[in-house]
Amino acid sequence: MGKVSPSVDSVRGFQVAGVPAGLKKDGALDFSLVVSEVDCAAAGVFTRNKVKAAPVLLDMQRLEENPKSIRAVATNTISANACTGALGLKNARATANLVADALSIVAEQVLVMSTGVIGTHLPMDKIAHGVELASANLGSDWRAAAAGIMTTDTRPKLGSIAVETDDGAYTIAGMVKGAGMIAPNMATMLSVIVTDAELQLPNLQSALTAAAQQSYNRIVVDGDTSTNDTVLLLANGMSGVALSSEAELAAFQDALNALTRFLAQEVVRDGEGVTKFITLNIVNAESEADAEKIGGTIGASVLTKSAFYGSDANWGRIVAAAGRADTSFDPDSTSLWLAEGESGASDAPGLEIFSGGMPTDYREEDAAAIMAEPSITFTLDCGIGDGGATIWTCDISHEYISINGDYRS
Amino acid sequence: MGKVSPSVDSVRGFQVAGVPAGLKKDGALDFSLVVSEVDCAAAGVFTRNKVKAAPVLLDMQRLEENPKSIRAVATNTISANACTGALGLKNARATANLVADALSIVAEQVLVMSTGVIGTHLPMDKIAHGVELASANLGSDWRAAAAGIMTTDTRPKLGSIAVETDDGAYTIAGMVKGAGMIAPNMATMLSVIVTDAELQLPNLQSALTAAAQQSYNRIVVDGDTSTNDTVLLLANGMSGVALSSEAELAAFQDALNALTRFLAQEVVRDGEGVTKFITLNIVNAESEADAEKIGGTIGASVLTKSAFYGSDANWGRIVAAAGRADTSFDPDSTSLWLAEGESGASDAPGLEIFSGGMPTDYREEDAAAIMAEPSITFTLDCGIGDGGATIWTCDISHEYISINGDYRS
Repeated sequence: MGKVSPSVDSVRGFQVAGVPAGLKKDGALDFSLVVSEVDCAAAGVFTRNKVKAAPVLLDMQRLEENPKSIRAVATNTISANACTGALGLKNARATANLVADALSIVAEQVLVMSTGVIGTHLPMDKIAHGVELASANLGSDWRAAAAGIMTTDTRPKLGSIAVETDDGAYTIAGMVKGAGMIAPNMATMLSVIVTDAELQLPNLQSALTAAAQQSYNRIVVDGDTSTNDTVLLLANGMSGVALSSEAELAAFQDALNALTRFLAQEVVRDGEGVTKFITLNIVNAESEADAEKIGGTIGASVLTKSAFYGSDANWGRIVAAAGRADTSFDPDSTSLWLAEGESGASDAPGLEIFSGGMPTDYREEDAAAIMAEPSITFTLDCGIGDGGATIWTCDISHEYISINGDYRS
Repeated sequence: MGKVSPSVDSVRGFQVAGVPAGLKKDGALDFSLVVSEVDCAAAGVFTRNKVKAAPVLLDMQRLEENPKSIRAVATNTISANACTGALGLKNARATANLVADALSIVAEQVLVMSTGVIGTHLPMDKIAHGVELASANLGSDWRAAAAGIMTTDTRPKLGSIAVETDDGAYTIAGMVKGAGMIAPNMATMLSVIVTDAELQLPNLQSALTAAAQQSYNRIVVDGDTSTNDTVLLLANGMSGVALSSEAELAAFQDALNALTRFLAQEVVRDGEGVTKFITLNIVNAESEADAEKIGGTIGASVLTKSAFYGSDANWGRIVAAAGRADTSFDPDSTSLWLAEGESGASDAPGLEIFSGGMPTDYREEDAAAIMAEPSITFTLDCGIGDGGATIWTCDISHEYISINGDYRS
């Protein structure tokens, strides 16, 4: 397996476009299209919020009824088309119809995604303009396509990974938008991933579910879960490489995991007002589920995130957040380490700052030097089991409050 | 039943003091003592965090072993005495011993509370100085006592309520500190409440538990739960009014509920960096527990709190937060109203901004005019049951981030 590249050259049989449909006031790219030359098997994971946007409801239905011949994914910004009732569903279908007409395919082959303000209706004239522009400009500019789905993101987020097999090579590529409303419990973002490998539908869905679980479900920006979160995976088989053996599927899973982890981390790095990238390695919890809950609670603690922002090695807030997670936890068996960078659980955990229910006699200057870095790893050893999980999160800054105090205007 | 007064004149048999023990650098009041002339029945509610500070552990033990003859409560600021191991417990006991010596009572009659930074040991010389000063200055200055337990609070928070009975009058009075680390699930603050009524121990504890449930457990500042949260209720019977009949206990409960609601709301009003006081009336949820969870999730949503700060009537974020609470919820049966002030659930709910899964056709100017007010009530009618709960919360501001990015230095 190769390394994840932060760009996409091309994926056989897929074309993309990101265009200015006039949704954004400043003429920026605001509508995007991903199209496959041939039918794709498609899988999806969707928000667990009980308030689901119209495009989410439509895509869930299409993947239920027609998961083997998907051809296109259209994404608009500015309006989330959530809490929009019957008209919202009608507009989501109308968007798919416009795409189908432009590409000479049928509407049931089109998936749609929306992001933006909740409760506003899609301006269908601008959507029509976006479909027209995008379908006339399909190519390999994945960077433009990724820019066309951005809201408060500051940069397009995309990546790809190539996998060599005995039967030839295939590629997995994708893009993501995120920024705010990011928390565990599904996707919390929009992401489209495509591959020119060929996979059977159940294998494709289980690979995406597993990949999302160790990537998009393990990042926390602000603890909120959106009404629109969607991750789609399309496989068109155009590489001629068909994956069916256990080893082939395992290699695909590894590559997909790596790509989705990269994209998920990109979402945290580009979170609203983020100044620090924080890796939380939770080890030796009673179970993996407990480890995930503990990391998620720490990552969503606004008090802890404020301390990260202030470059304060405030282990007290971290341990207190762990202590209020709905899990087994014993501070007396717990240790906490601090290290610079993004070391994984297997690396040296760094400076021990808490052990046996108390702070160690570490020197505050040593901790402060690490906390001043833009990327920091905390390793929390719960000392009561063998469950582990890594959560990626960030600080909360003045900038976050400014962005979200003033989003709709 | 009278009204809650935001001050305390005196409560028969109780004396208090707030003194500068030298814990705070600026010579401000930082240590406080509440003393009863005679033995008190005492009840407590404590943090549910699995990381419990030494004073919490000590008080839980004393209320277990010796709940009928409590005489004093000592509170220090600056050090939380949490995550301090065996020395922390020893210091908590030593504080009680110093108070007992100064008052010529026994150590088992003394409860202690601490607030401040986690993981620092109590500076016992300063504590000793505080005990000496406070025991020499006991009187009726409740305002000074309430100031002596403040951390990032901007003002002392105290209150009292008088109750007339056929046998005479009694008073319930109390003080609270809060500011940050405020979330449902117990107390999330320090509070001492005293009464000169006489109550049997089980009645006292059940009254406090019920009062905390509808007050301290229903406020959210930042969603974090402290290691030190403690609410104590002492009854010394010095009014000569003994409460035992169902009617007498109900009247006590009503008065205690009103006082604790007042004190809890004071904590929100004085929350770190708070600019808006928000009342969330959740009605017609499937159960009271569901209503409480929905209100708590909205109140802890940093995205929603940012919108409050920006005076944005962002019903989308409110409904989305409700949708991610772990409860039954159906946006299509839900309505949301917005009103100025602190109207209770029984009042007119105001401007309807969301109904049947969609925004109403309200005028944005009307909503903006309400959102510009310093106190706002949202009524969320879930339309699926008859469970209700009121949660009090606030916005999150730049100031919160500044306070918490820089707390330990």
